[in-house]
Amino acid sequence: MSRPAVHPVEPPPFIDGRDDEAPPRRVRMKDVQGMPGTLTGLALRLCQFIFSVVSLTVMAATSDFPSVTAFRYLVGAAGLQSLWSLFLAMIDAYALCVRRSLRNPALITIYAIGDGVTSTLTFAAACACAGITVLISNDLNKCDVNHCKKFISATAMAFLSWFAASPSFFFNFWSLASR
Amino acid sequence: MSRPAVHPVEPPPFIDGRDDEAPPRRVRMKDVQGMPGTLTGLALRLCQFIFSVVSLTVMAATSDFPSVTAFRYLVGAAGLQSLWSLFLAMIDAYALCVRRSLRNPALITIYAIGDGVTSTLTFAAACACAGITVLISNDLNKCDVNHCKKFISATAMAFLSWFAASPSFFFNFWSLASR
Repeated sequence: MSRPAVHPVEPPPFIDGRDDEAPPRRVRMKDVQGMPGTLTGLALRLCQFIFSVVSLTVMAATSDFPSVTAFRYLVGAAGLQSLWSLFLAMIDAYALCVRRSLRNPALITIYAIGDGVTSTLTFAAACACAGITVLISNDLNKCDVNHCKKFISATAMAFLSWFAASPSFFFNFWSLASR
Repeated sequence: MSRPAVHPVEPPPFIDGRDDEAPPRRVRMKDVQGMPGTLTGLALRLCQFIFSVVSLTVMAATSDFPSVTAFRYLVGAAGLQSLWSLFLAMIDAYALCVRRSLRNPALITIYAIGDGVTSTLTFAAACACAGITVLISNDLNKCDVNHCKKFISATAMAFLSWFAASPSFFFNFWSLASR
């Protein structure tokens, strides 16, 4: 799945010049910060993981979250996002440690699809919880009998997790389209 | 903003062969169904427009939508989506009638940003309304005092509008990245 390469130094050109005559293979992609296997990419993954775990923990710490479908959905979506981001952060950290390149088209396709699905689910959960939180706090003024602060915190963290997940998705999608 | 071209016939190659020697200008893009100026693109725009107008109408027809922030937001987001889709549908129809090509990088950039913003707003509104509708109908069982069917219909139409808007965004983003 990963291709060995001295990173970030470009591979030296072939001496006999056959590389110029043969059609380009287009297997390797450009090295852009934010993509898998880069420091910015790893930082984005860690941000996604931290924000989604905080969102999950804060929401799961409220006693009445199981009574609202959207709050249960947020716990599930944040859990999925945190697992996906942790898994990809570990792969990124491994690739950085052993200086391997992860810019493989098949891998980038899987990353782009996974990022698209998880970030859409996280965004949907955050929006649903935001709708209910605003309903409780602003429209009905029932914050005295509800954990409004915890709901708002969990929703905000889910939105931050989505903000961190979107660049990863766009980087992968862009590099997939531009190869 | 638009470039004259016989559509869909490819322009004939230059006779003196200078086109091969000069570096490619990359101003025109590939002709893919679903992009601006194609029949599929026009059909997508019309679907977006119809679904968002129906969503807006059904939600605005309920007497108590102004009391809930998410429902007011849905009316605004669906209104913006319908205006944007109608405007682009008219441009697409004009381009098809006069057989002009709309595959200009600057135009595609504006389309991609506009599609990204409007479809995200529509999706957020649909998710927020879905959260509240499920809360009212499933969690609280208060459909007897609320217009649950209308809320569900408006939410479903907003989701359908988002489903129709997403391909437009991805086509534009893909062609922007792959040029």
